Amino acid sequence: MKTAIVSVGTELLFGQIVNTNAVYLSQQMNLLGMDVLYHFTVGDNPKRLADTLRQALKDCDLILTSGGLGPTQDDLTKETVAEVLHDQLVEHPHCMERLLAEYKKIGRPMSENNRKQAFMPSRAQVFDNDGGTAPGFALIEGEKMIICMPGPPREMTAMFEEKIKPYFLKRSNAAIYYRIIREFGIGESQLETNLLPLIDGQTDPTIATYAKEGESTLRIASKRATMEEARQAVNDMIKRVDEIIGDSIYSYDNEELAAVVGRKLLEQQITVSSAESCTGGLFAARLIDIPGISAVFDRGLVTYSNKAKEEELGVSGKTLKSYGAVSRETAVEMAEGLHRASGSRLCISVTGVAGPDGGTEEKPVGLVYVAILLDGTLTCREFRQWPVNRSWNRNYTVLQMLFMIYKLIDKM
Amino acid sequence: MKTAIVSVGTELLFGQIVNTNAVYLSQQMNLLGMDVLYHFTVGDNPKRLADTLRQALKDCDLILTSGGLGPTQDDLTKETVAEVLHDQLVEHPHCMERLLAEYKKIGRPMSENNRKQAFMPSRAQVFDNDGGTAPGFALIEGEKMIICMPGPPREMTAMFEEKIKPYFLKRSNAAIYYRIIREFGIGESQLETNLLPLIDGQTDPTIATYAKEGESTLRIASKRATMEEARQAVNDMIKRVDEIIGDSIYSYDNEELAAVVGRKLLEQQITVSSAESCTGGLFAARLIDIPGISAVFDRGLVTYSNKAKEEELGVSGKTLKSYGAVSRETAVEMAEGLHRASGSRLCISVTGVAGPDGGTEEKPVGLVYVAILLDGTLTCREFRQWPVNRSWNRNYTVLQMLFMIYKLIDKM
Repeated sequence: MKTAIVSVGTELLFGQIVNTNAVYLSQQMNLLGMDVLYHFTVGDNPKRLADTLRQALKDCDLILTSGGLGPTQDDLTKETVAEVLHDQLVEHPHCMERLLAEYKKIGRPMSENNRKQAFMPSRAQVFDNDGGTAPGFALIEGEKMIICMPGPPREMTAMFEEKIKPYFLKRSNAAIYYRIIREFGIGESQLETNLLPLIDGQTDPTIATYAKEGESTLRIASKRATMEEARQAVNDMIKRVDEIIGDSIYSYDNEELAAVVGRKLLEQQITVSSAESCTGGLFAARLIDIPGISAVFDRGLVTYSNKAKEEELGVSGKTLKSYGAVSRETAVEMAEGLHRASGSRLCISVTGVAGPDGGTEEKPVGLVYVAILLDGTLTCREFRQWPVNRSWNRNYTVLQMLFMIYKLIDKM
Repeated sequence: MKTAIVSVGTELLFGQIVNTNAVYLSQQMNLLGMDVLYHFTVGDNPKRLADTLRQALKDCDLILTSGGLGPTQDDLTKETVAEVLHDQLVEHPHCMERLLAEYKKIGRPMSENNRKQAFMPSRAQVFDNDGGTAPGFALIEGEKMIICMPGPPREMTAMFEEKIKPYFLKRSNAAIYYRIIREFGIGESQLETNLLPLIDGQTDPTIATYAKEGESTLRIASKRATMEEARQAVNDMIKRVDEIIGDSIYSYDNEELAAVVGRKLLEQQITVSSAESCTGGLFAARLIDIPGISAVFDRGLVTYSNKAKEEELGVSGKTLKSYGAVSRETAVEMAEGLHRASGSRLCISVTGVAGPDGGTEEKPVGLVYVAILLDGTLTCREFRQWPVNRSWNRNYTVLQMLFMIYKLIDKM
């Protein structure tokens, strides 16, 4: 189905907010097998909105709009859509009932202009808004359909997920199942190359890759007659993906690396402490973002200066002098000193050149040592990262640290 | 001038990337006093692009496009724009010269399809691309103008800033000057209320507010006949803004709070260490993001457990027991212990309830104590933040800490 996405709101034309609705709806519609041909953004202006809808209907059979369903005078999407598809607004008893109940619940009188939100095109199929007061709807004329949703992203995505996607699937007698896999360490272009035999010429399940700082996600989706078939197709494909890149995968359910590691540390009751130099506390901060982590996280030391490394961790001045602060030897002594201080089962240390300055030929920006002492067993790795910038380097190093932990504790 | 922004690229319609170009261009065009009426996004399809341009030209006098100027077969923006404005592509000697020089510089032979990038509409005013190989251009027919820019945001923004903005300003015999002010602690809606007397009915300079997690920015812009007049108008307005919210402003040049604080610590050679509980290392991580900060940052301790607070900082077990880990007394002992360990001139500590769990009636989620020991003088503050979520609470707490430091050292 040829589709256009129309976003309504003057604030978008001022550049005050990013149009995340268009991104979300594009992804979802592509997942549903629809061809998205256009995005349009128009202000709160009925003539221009009507022109846009009519223009879009020349090429497209389906239009999704977001925004302009609220109670104010500016909100004119409903009126305009009704006009374009030759319908008119009437009071919708179910919507009025819900609206009155909503106002009763919050204990405030409903002002007259709010009644507007319970008026709907007479032929509309209404979708309740469980997160706000403005309902959505679908309006059909012949082969053409316009679906209108509220503008706030939270309300829009909830309505799409819970009401509109099932509505499409029911109409097309189809089921969609997808899973999102996350991997670390391969990189997007290499990932595509590796998976080319699976991606090329593949119509169902589809595989889409998305890259984010050092991590990649794969969305594997299938649209079949039944949910059982779709699920089977996706899981079969995951097995084939696993054979090629299984070693790099840390989640089959779109869970972030820090969340996976935090969950495993909690499940296995592994106490943890960290000693950071180049990452400056970012590792501890990332881990402590996990609710409940206080049950296992003991302490984090950010020993940025050599003095702090000596005083807090007992790294020997000799080691710092002979091998330098960025060295395997220093990383190991940091982890050992941290273990003496904390007694944590897992002690992780990191030292490296974050840049932009401070790199030498022997120790370039991007050189990082990570040491882990886990139940008495020492692992130390050297990484030579492609330096992007200070912030990226540090983020990437934290991912390296988390992935090293993941690999060590995953099979425990 | 009524303006439309047209983004060309199938990847946008797949939802693979967010359309940041449209946001940037909207902000910039509004700044230049243009009315942005529409955003359009179309794929790499010449017929639909032509339809879109023709539709846009009905309402608008000016269209800005980004994307589709590259060397591949998909890149058809130039051909289409030339067709719509009744021109044709010819080899542009200056562009060919630059293109050949570019390939010579990187030492690779130029494939035949790359020549395409040096073809331009015959009437085009060409804009060199200093960050890539595809030049941009403006093409005029009668009252209508289409300006085409490359799609990669870095190339597009550089071309707009350095070539296209001056081109507009020259055509309109105007100069634009703006400054971006940053404040912490007021919040966007209160900010608008406070500044209403200045915003209301104000046509030049204009004041626009943007909110970001706990911080707000104000853009004050003026478009006048000369740069001198515009600068004067903006600076006069800044004086009036200053009278109302001066206490909350930490930058008049769009500098981030952490960067301002880091710069001042470096300038004043104030050594600094941190002891964090609820923020879990985020404060240290934020500060260490500043290049060169190693000259003053000594160490950061993330003493998450009570045991770590006692062992690393010498907080007394009695204090922890009598007042609790989240208390003024604990915060103060943390700062004092940190000073004993590090000897840093500025020692900052933080302890609080980050949530989502762990809050009580007496000590709710969002309660935070920050203590600063600066050259022997102790400052301790209690904050009761509106709890949003764990991540937001911690981010906001770090901003509180940075702003407290800013206020203490700004006048030193």
